Amino acid sequence: MHLLRSSLKNFNKSKNILIVLDGVGGIPNKYKTELEFAKTPNLNKLIKKSETGCHIPIKEGITPGSGSAHLALFGYDPLDFNIGRGVLEALGLDIDIGSKDLAIRGNFASVEYKNKKLIVTDRRAGRIITEENNRIVKKLSQNIKIIDKYKIFFKSGLEHRFVCKISSPNKISKDECNIQDTDPQIVGQSPLDPINLNKKSLQTSIIIKKLLDKIKNVLKQEKNANFALLRGFSSYPTIPTFDNLYGIKSASVTTYPMYKGIGRLVGMEPLPLNTNSLQGQITAIKANINNYDFFYLHIKKTDSYGEDGNFKEKVKEIEKFDKLLPQLINLNFNVVAITGDHSTPSRMKSHSWHPVPVLIRSDNSYNGLSKRFTESECLKGSLGIFEAKHLLTYIFAHAGNLDKFGA
Amino acid sequence: MHLLRSSLKNFNKSKNILIVLDGVGGIPNKYKTELEFAKTPNLNKLIKKSETGCHIPIKEGITPGSGSAHLALFGYDPLDFNIGRGVLEALGLDIDIGSKDLAIRGNFASVEYKNKKLIVTDRRAGRIITEENNRIVKKLSQNIKIIDKYKIFFKSGLEHRFVCKISSPNKISKDECNIQDTDPQIVGQSPLDPINLNKKSLQTSIIIKKLLDKIKNVLKQEKNANFALLRGFSSYPTIPTFDNLYGIKSASVTTYPMYKGIGRLVGMEPLPLNTNSLQGQITAIKANINNYDFFYLHIKKTDSYGEDGNFKEKVKEIEKFDKLLPQLINLNFNVVAITGDHSTPSRMKSHSWHPVPVLIRSDNSYNGLSKRFTESECLKGSLGIFEAKHLLTYIFAHAGNLDKFGA
Repeated sequence: MHLLRSSLKNFNKSKNILIVLDGVGGIPNKYKTELEFAKTPNLNKLIKKSETGCHIPIKEGITPGSGSAHLALFGYDPLDFNIGRGVLEALGLDIDIGSKDLAIRGNFASVEYKNKKLIVTDRRAGRIITEENNRIVKKLSQNIKIIDKYKIFFKSGLEHRFVCKISSPNKISKDECNIQDTDPQIVGQSPLDPINLNKKSLQTSIIIKKLLDKIKNVLKQEKNANFALLRGFSSYPTIPTFDNLYGIKSASVTTYPMYKGIGRLVGMEPLPLNTNSLQGQITAIKANINNYDFFYLHIKKTDSYGEDGNFKEKVKEIEKFDKLLPQLINLNFNVVAITGDHSTPSRMKSHSWHPVPVLIRSDNSYNGLSKRFTESECLKGSLGIFEAKHLLTYIFAHAGNLDKFGA
Repeated sequence: MHLLRSSLKNFNKSKNILIVLDGVGGIPNKYKTELEFAKTPNLNKLIKKSETGCHIPIKEGITPGSGSAHLALFGYDPLDFNIGRGVLEALGLDIDIGSKDLAIRGNFASVEYKNKKLIVTDRRAGRIITEENNRIVKKLSQNIKIIDKYKIFFKSGLEHRFVCKISSPNKISKDECNIQDTDPQIVGQSPLDPINLNKKSLQTSIIIKKLLDKIKNVLKQEKNANFALLRGFSSYPTIPTFDNLYGIKSASVTTYPMYKGIGRLVGMEPLPLNTNSLQGQITAIKANINNYDFFYLHIKKTDSYGEDGNFKEKVKEIEKFDKLLPQLINLNFNVVAITGDHSTPSRMKSHSWHPVPVLIRSDNSYNGLSKRFTESECLKGSLGIFEAKHLLTYIFAHAGNLDKFGA
């Protein structure tokens, strides 16, 4: 998909913005979805000039993670390109990852010996507070710096979460990171061994085994966080950037590091924010409007409240966005596209596979088919239901940035 | 796609017609599209018995050229089959192209020497009139007939345009025509060399170089058109014909040579017309109704007026078609399919990616879902939005000409 699009590129001076309301799609809670319930006068106005439809993030019935869903929105086939969970977490903590690095998600956990067997008693070490996490990570960092020729780096996340980066002397490929998670997923069980799931990952598994022994030793005096469970072993993915593919300058405008990281993977420069709020994000876009061709604006909280099952607060987040929307519209983008990366129905308290409404406002929009930016109204639009990986083609088409295909 | 369809073929004595209103799809001009604005009592009547949907010519967001869009309507994957621009122009001028031929689009141009460098001063030679073009082409034809063992043939297009056909002693493949365009695209630059972009095209590039030297020599006394810029070097594409794939006899009924040419590529015999009008086309179909299994009727002007941004005249062309439609219906085809090859919204004055309405009338139609043959009404149909390459499968299915797939 990205190669066909790239082969037709013909960029004039257009300014485009992709606004992602994370997890905005829903299913009716009794009678209405969050988008239907929300009062959105500005979206209602915008949609009159917009082409509409719904996207499915990956494939019919497939619920996406944030990384895959975003890669699709950025125009890559999410089945061909995959970001490992460890790398995604590392990006989320603003850790620099390169082609020689292996990234791992860690949980601090409580363990004890029962009948001479090491047993997990709390997979989150009693959800220790972040300050406590910082102290422990400092301890680990001071005591574990190198294993054989592999450099070890730790960074705290929130509560019990952390990331470990292992820097190899050489490039490390996806095939060398095929390691079993050590989290047994339930308490009362032993931590699993970091078994290599293919031959090429043998050396990696040896290093991880040594790492776990060292972690256990350094943390043995800790009351709660006296061990770590490791998951999502992954290497840096190779993804052609927006600049390489289309020759355009793109910026990400995000409040959560992870989304900044995903943007960076595809070549988006993160804009600095004065305040970590939607207003701060909009102000950053205004300040940089002449410096970039493409902006990616990410709004997180719609997803968070969906995950919490909090219908009312998700509605409020949508309404907050709607209130500030005119500031974005007034920047006179050639194309404004608004969608979510996936649905997070508060009724389900989780990501889902349900189609996500899409709006594209440009001078070339087939407008008038949807009355509101809601799931049911966008399903009436001329874009129909389409795979998310095509959205970027539509955006570039609307901007007049693609040549005709064929003679 | 065409191979699956071919593998299931089971043709009885059905008569099918595919009617292509070129560029008929639109987007609302204020409130209505051209199809919505047009008064179409006969289409309104026909759609009551029709299955409906919308096709996208190539892929989501991709705007097609005429050649690719037609290949898709004829059931080929347009990403696998591509007609070179030179061949398309040649077909448009009614030039016979075969497997030993290389076709080139040419522009007469004005050049002059500045500091001993040849510089393009007008890429269109001041848009010379067609009569002037005819005179120059005659001069070229008299002076350049053969280069090494390659026969050279010129034919005038409109204004500054012409086509050059080079007939090789042997078959010439796509890989032997990978030659850089010599048009620098802007004035003040030198014409580019016809560099071979791969090894296999070396011999071709040598002939083209000699050809350009001869053209320069023959035209050196001309005031305006004293050189030529060449583009779209292409060989005859290899496409399995309708006859080969399905064992049916097919006819094209077109008023523009290019569409006759595209039809010929897939094995359609062009019907001779007494008058170059839609009535003339219909009369030709009536006269040949017993001689063919499949008719392709092409109506050009809907696209032309779309390209001109002339909403009103595009509407009139649709209404003209509607008026004559009953004559076609009365021929009792088993299947009547009506669509466009792509959209040409008069609001955009160009081809676009927007979905194109489709109607299929047969005894097996899922009818009753669309009230009119318009974009918005056809979006409600049971065919949904589908890639154009599938249309022919639907037509054959409706005609009862395909076996079940699998046991």
